[in-house]
Amino acid sequence: MRIAVDVLGGDHAPGEILKGVADALKSDFTADQFLLAGPPEVIEAGLRSHGIVDIPAILATDQVVESHEKPTKALKSKPRSTIALCVGAVKQGHAGGLISFGNTGAAVAAATFGLGMLPGMKRPGISVVLTGSAGKIVLLDAGANPQAKALHLFQYAVAGSAFAHDMHGIANPRVGLLNIGGEAGKGSPAVQEVHAMLEQSSLTFVGNVEGQELFAGVADVLVTDGFVGNMILKVVEGFVEYVVRESQAEKSAELRQTFRRLFGAADFADIGGATLLGVDGVVLIGHGRSHANAVAPALRAVRGDIEAGVNRHIIEAIGAEAPDSASQEAERD
Amino acid sequence: MRIAVDVLGGDHAPGEILKGVADALKSDFTADQFLLAGPPEVIEAGLRSHGIVDIPAILATDQVVESHEKPTKALKSKPRSTIALCVGAVKQGHAGGLISFGNTGAAVAAATFGLGMLPGMKRPGISVVLTGSAGKIVLLDAGANPQAKALHLFQYAVAGSAFAHDMHGIANPRVGLLNIGGEAGKGSPAVQEVHAMLEQSSLTFVGNVEGQELFAGVADVLVTDGFVGNMILKVVEGFVEYVVRESQAEKSAELRQTFRRLFGAADFADIGGATLLGVDGVVLIGHGRSHANAVAPALRAVRGDIEAGVNRHIIEAIGAEAPDSASQEAERD
Repeated sequence: MRIAVDVLGGDHAPGEILKGVADALKSDFTADQFLLAGPPEVIEAGLRSHGIVDIPAILATDQVVESHEKPTKALKSKPRSTIALCVGAVKQGHAGGLISFGNTGAAVAAATFGLGMLPGMKRPGISVVLTGSAGKIVLLDAGANPQAKALHLFQYAVAGSAFAHDMHGIANPRVGLLNIGGEAGKGSPAVQEVHAMLEQSSLTFVGNVEGQELFAGVADVLVTDGFVGNMILKVVEGFVEYVVRESQAEKSAELRQTFRRLFGAADFADIGGATLLGVDGVVLIGHGRSHANAVAPALRAVRGDIEAGVNRHIIEAIGAEAPDSASQEAERD
Repeated sequence: MRIAVDVLGGDHAPGEILKGVADALKSDFTADQFLLAGPPEVIEAGLRSHGIVDIPAILATDQVVESHEKPTKALKSKPRSTIALCVGAVKQGHAGGLISFGNTGAAVAAATFGLGMLPGMKRPGISVVLTGSAGKIVLLDAGANPQAKALHLFQYAVAGSAFAHDMHGIANPRVGLLNIGGEAGKGSPAVQEVHAMLEQSSLTFVGNVEGQELFAGVADVLVTDGFVGNMILKVVEGFVEYVVRESQAEKSAELRQTFRRLFGAADFADIGGATLLGVDGVVLIGHGRSHANAVAPALRAVRGDIEAGVNRHIIEAIGAEAPDSASQEAERD
């Protein structure tokens, strides 16, 4: 099954994206597995410069939603943007999934409206995979839904659990709710409400997880709203940058290397991208700052998502989990 | 002016608190500058064991609000808790300020109800001082008010600005609003509303600040609600612990030392505590995990707060700033 690739989205696009695609073609991908959205001459010249002869199929366009543009407005004024063409290819079955390193809001909006939601799912959530003391952690939502309601958070728990099961091979993923205290009564009304819903669900709910436990391996899935999730990831990213910058004064190259290795845990540019869970299709959102070395891992993540059939499992789990309060709220929302 | 000290609050109380008080008495404090709340025999024995002969005045009690207790309930059932006695001493003018390393919620509740708010201020905010690329940054609220309204956030900006002016000597502190995007339309309705209020204020508003810029020195004061502020600080704390733990495998002691030095930026145990801005008195909330070495700096922070008269400046600034929308909302709230 093909993967649609947004060649023009991202801080270092198209150069680094094409270099990454070329790397993938030289290792474990073949040309017929890609559908590249962008200007044909740029794509061909770029891939050829990296020694690629067998050029994948191209969705020809030179429109792109820039990172500073308002998503909905830009999607309207640029009907042939790379992200719109990628979404269209998935919708029409020409591709089994897509990846974009461009404007995150545009990718979320184009995928949500273009592909629709999985049956029962209310809102998409960006699922980031972090590495903690005890292995991989799925954190969602990382920014798609900054004002999530209790039902949205509950569904993120269900979808994140299915993802951790299928992608990380965890039989009964432990689900934690990010909160500012350990007790059930902490947090906003939505957070308190979802706490009760999770306790009554068949998920393996480990209760509230405080910020300092994020990397401690106490849960395999961590649920929060898009404001908090986005803020956390960016703060850690900024903190790592700050420390690395300050440590430039250090003479030891070994020291700087060690920093980078340890900080890999927080660097989701390394992992390649985050999965947009909940939409009816496989959508990977790459980090805008990604360089070529993040592209091939991201392409493998898309392939892994497609092969695992996570979305089928999410539909089943959402159907099976719907608690009374959720189905009631579903009527309203 | 005396400082009231909660000797029983904190993970390592009373031992580490008393050791810290002894250190302070051996350097730049005298016995008549303290009022120690706790069991007299414990305080006397503890201080004597560290070579202190001149024992400060004591507010005798053996009641303490434990860290796991619900603040309001515990404050009711323990009328002579150390935190209640410290607040009482400030209220009655026997002390100019107080510090507690104990239950944060209890300190906030006891101070808010016992001392009342500064005229015009609606809610207290915990103000943490971080060190970034360009010096000190005041981040508030760090957990007192998890569901802050726009007016609360606006007043945090005003109070934080007065604090940065008085305590950090910054003539026109740059105020930033923590948000998940750079544009005015980002974030919750409360965040969007306070953005507009800050733009119309006489504060030096630098706009939205994203998570990755937290340590970048783009603002001297960073405003957010207590849920996000608390989460951010704890995530960074947990991340530092995680990296330090992982780096134990590193052979180089120099490396571990470098980590610790650089991570000082995020370690507010080092700074000693956070000021509870907005209440009618000087209240410092120490980190519960503090050891003795954090106590003397925290005591100096209390003394600095008292001497600077930050609260007078906050009252003036709140009065001067009240924009139309704020005064309207003040009627409602």
